[in-house]
Amino acid sequence: MSTDIGQNIIAGRYSPNAGALLQSLDASSGEALPFTFGQASAAQVDDAAQAAAAAYPLFRSLSSTRRAEFLDAVAAQIDALGDDFVAIVCRETALPAARIQGERGRTSGQMRLFAQVLRRGDFYGARIDRALPERQPLPRPDLRQCSMGVGPVAVFGASNFPLAFSTAGGDTAAAFAAGCPVVFKAHSGHMATAALVAAAILRAAEQTGMPAGVFNMIYGAGVGEALVKHPAIQAVGFTGSLKGGRALCDMAAARPQPIPVFAEMSSINPVLVLPAALRSRGEKIARELADSVVQGCGQFCTNPGLVLGISSPQFSLFTANLIHEISQRPPQTMLNAGTLKSYEKGLAALHAHAQVKHLAGQAQEGQQARPQLFQANVQMLIDADELLQEEVFGPVTVIVEVADKAELLKALSGLRGQLTATFTADAEDLSEFAEVLPLLEQKVGRVLFNGYPTGVEVCDAMVHGGPYPATSDARGTSVGSLAIARFLRPVCYQNCPDELLPDALKNANPLGIARLVDGQSSREALS
Amino acid sequence: MSTDIGQNIIAGRYSPNAGALLQSLDASSGEALPFTFGQASAAQVDDAAQAAAAAYPLFRSLSSTRRAEFLDAVAAQIDALGDDFVAIVCRETALPAARIQGERGRTSGQMRLFAQVLRRGDFYGARIDRALPERQPLPRPDLRQCSMGVGPVAVFGASNFPLAFSTAGGDTAAAFAAGCPVVFKAHSGHMATAALVAAAILRAAEQTGMPAGVFNMIYGAGVGEALVKHPAIQAVGFTGSLKGGRALCDMAAARPQPIPVFAEMSSINPVLVLPAALRSRGEKIARELADSVVQGCGQFCTNPGLVLGISSPQFSLFTANLIHEISQRPPQTMLNAGTLKSYEKGLAALHAHAQVKHLAGQAQEGQQARPQLFQANVQMLIDADELLQEEVFGPVTVIVEVADKAELLKALSGLRGQLTATFTADAEDLSEFAEVLPLLEQKVGRVLFNGYPTGVEVCDAMVHGGPYPATSDARGTSVGSLAIARFLRPVCYQNCPDELLPDALKNANPLGIARLVDGQSSREALS
Repeated sequence: MSTDIGQNIIAGRYSPNAGALLQSLDASSGEALPFTFGQASAAQVDDAAQAAAAAYPLFRSLSSTRRAEFLDAVAAQIDALGDDFVAIVCRETALPAARIQGERGRTSGQMRLFAQVLRRGDFYGARIDRALPERQPLPRPDLRQCSMGVGPVAVFGASNFPLAFSTAGGDTAAAFAAGCPVVFKAHSGHMATAALVAAAILRAAEQTGMPAGVFNMIYGAGVGEALVKHPAIQAVGFTGSLKGGRALCDMAAARPQPIPVFAEMSSINPVLVLPAALRSRGEKIARELADSVVQGCGQFCTNPGLVLGISSPQFSLFTANLIHEISQRPPQTMLNAGTLKSYEKGLAALHAHAQVKHLAGQAQEGQQARPQLFQANVQMLIDADELLQEEVFGPVTVIVEVADKAELLKALSGLRGQLTATFTADAEDLSEFAEVLPLLEQKVGRVLFNGYPTGVEVCDAMVHGGPYPATSDARGTSVGSLAIARFLRPVCYQNCPDELLPDALKNANPLGIARLVDGQSSREALS
Repeated sequence: MSTDIGQNIIAGRYSPNAGALLQSLDASSGEALPFTFGQASAAQVDDAAQAAAAAYPLFRSLSSTRRAEFLDAVAAQIDALGDDFVAIVCRETALPAARIQGERGRTSGQMRLFAQVLRRGDFYGARIDRALPERQPLPRPDLRQCSMGVGPVAVFGASNFPLAFSTAGGDTAAAFAAGCPVVFKAHSGHMATAALVAAAILRAAEQTGMPAGVFNMIYGAGVGEALVKHPAIQAVGFTGSLKGGRALCDMAAARPQPIPVFAEMSSINPVLVLPAALRSRGEKIARELADSVVQGCGQFCTNPGLVLGISSPQFSLFTANLIHEISQRPPQTMLNAGTLKSYEKGLAALHAHAQVKHLAGQAQEGQQARPQLFQANVQMLIDADELLQEEVFGPVTVIVEVADKAELLKALSGLRGQLTATFTADAEDLSEFAEVLPLLEQKVGRVLFNGYPTGVEVCDAMVHGGPYPATSDARGTSVGSLAIARFLRPVCYQNCPDELLPDALKNANPLGIARLVDGQSSREALS
């Protein structure tokens, strides 16, 4: 890497470092990597936000085709990041190369999905109510509505997805698609990764003639607060802890002009393992569930942190199988020392609780996370005990046995909002436990049937969201094409001359998009 | 009215009054009307919220056709509220009978518009990505998404629209359409009106077999805070002052589980009167603008509170015409004594400012509001002086003369978010001032051309929203069919058996709605 790559990025340029330098670390060994990064000064944070604000009027007004070309160019640049890049990401995150290669494809795929959304044009939400000059008692004017980007967006990189939820991740892609310039706060755990991806974005921006401030990046501790409070910033995307996310929400709500924060925070992702399914394939379920718990060292937002089953010989056997499976899973290196420390703290709290029993896992020690299985008394869920409500980030899950369906419903009623809930169920379970689905629908963003919540497909129908504290706003998703809606707002034009209307609303329908015209969907041109 | 109509409504029943009684007043004379209302106790507020929560699972799960029937029945009941009702509303608000009759039609029309939205089915936002079992390296599961109501909604009645933004107003209609039960906080200015409309809703709910807690109503001072803080409440709709709306936002953001507040608050609705238009029809513009300023005694959210023009002989003539027009408009009675007091306070602040000149209007005194015209120095806008940024609710407007286009852009840049902005412009103005439109688009929810912002059409394309402080969330509208989106959130189903899916997502497409299937809009059934 060249030396200036360790600098903050403002309006497409590297801004010379003035203050403290931050060190990139090898996640496995803790040793210093040969990359340092400049802590952004207050002036640099301000400059970055101002650069985004300066780019906004032009960027939001570009045709959706132009923005799609930009996203496609970013995707191509990301795909072109080669083995050297993958090696650096692996060193910074301790994630295996195959995972990073997969995540690279997912990240470029996200960019391309949003390029498709831009070309499809449904994100405009175009609506036209034509004038009714003869209407009594009053004529109706011509009214037309479509969406535009809300303004500069602050995006916070996630520790656990150095590519797909970071620099050029889902929030950045959604903001770009919506026409919102981005100020990206790099995660301290993978700054070299961020620098290389940012350089890819800058190349794509230059290739496709985007305004200079379309992408800006800052490094450092404490800069997030200044960024969220900056008057130019109009929305925030965040993936991380409940504590961190809530702090940003509180800051954003207390601004002179409050702004929306889309924070994806804490979910324990309950998995119900129901009797008939356990009878027919209990051993397989135990194995697959253990795989899901330890996948990526349990460092997924959708990691299954709670397993519920009905007291029965099948469930006892399943528990024994799960003990066996979890006991056999090897320790893994976590994303960074801080994550390991949090994991140890989370485990200690579970060990310390009188109503929680440790079922499997080697004593947690050393530099790696050891998979763990606990069992908790159902009363803790019914009482909404805090300990079971907040996720322990890492390869651990908690099993809860309930007496019967009534107790299951009671236990689930006490659950807070979740990203996901999973039915592991045969047909006979689904009719027996039919009342459970409506209850879970009210608590989650995604309900799965006979799958595992890890593995979040990037597509139109995905919802990676859910009621608080899974996210700060259940009306959004941070994965999938609907994520663009978080950064859009509608604008209405009344009796606007055709030539001044956005293309999405012009009579001729030059974009050829579907529009709601006088209450009917239509792709026709209007006369 | 029967005696129990003065009671709070909980789960479809009148709840006996226990505490203080509140008096309905004649808005013109201030005399007591023969109607009293029970201040809701803490227990009644809790009961009302719990009743809404109890109704939610059933209400949200009803077919959209059933909810449409309910809305149509509410509309019919409102239309059936006769002359006696209109007379009571007129006494409580001092608004003329013709206005109330019109507003009654608008209110039932809103209910019917949302019934149409329910039958059209696009609010579901149905998206289906079918399974790709052969995909490499990993198969894609079947993923389907549609929207559901967020939960019980608290709605606050507005002073200035006793029907259309109150008990059965736009927020209530949107919440009902979304499948959200409502707890309505009646405005103290028109409690008898609220009671009669609430009774109409209860009749419709009973006729159409809705769950008892679908609509609840509470009266009294201070109960709004308890309502917004109640854990069962999941969203808030409010129309009123910036101070009141912001207080609710702050409370909602500070809850253990923060919830969204859609508050429509303060807008001064700038109107640009451009040179060519003034040359061709300046006198007419002055007359129509004065009409808009004094319409409904200036008690509209979209009242034009700021008029901007370019220094020129035409603008001087226009100013003289506007002085003439405003001077001739008669005083009118405001909604209540508090509103008049606020108006007097607002005028006093304008009179007291060194850079503001009084141009027209009789000295404000007595029991009625007298129309007023002021002129402010453009520097106040450039400096974002608070006095010009906040609306003075009533029949007053402030004229600002700018030197040229550059100064116009500077003045507009200082403006906060607005519900509307208006171009009064001929073709030649629009090309001359082309840079102004993009700037205003960024600041407002609706841009008008050669119209007046008062008069908000209820239709699909309307946006009655805009950046803060016009509203608390620019991504919503409180008028028009898109208002339903505020109270919806998406839910995703992964590999869900067809019979358990919501109708909107079933293979057979029993609702016959348009769905995004594998990235293409389609009404086809799936095999």
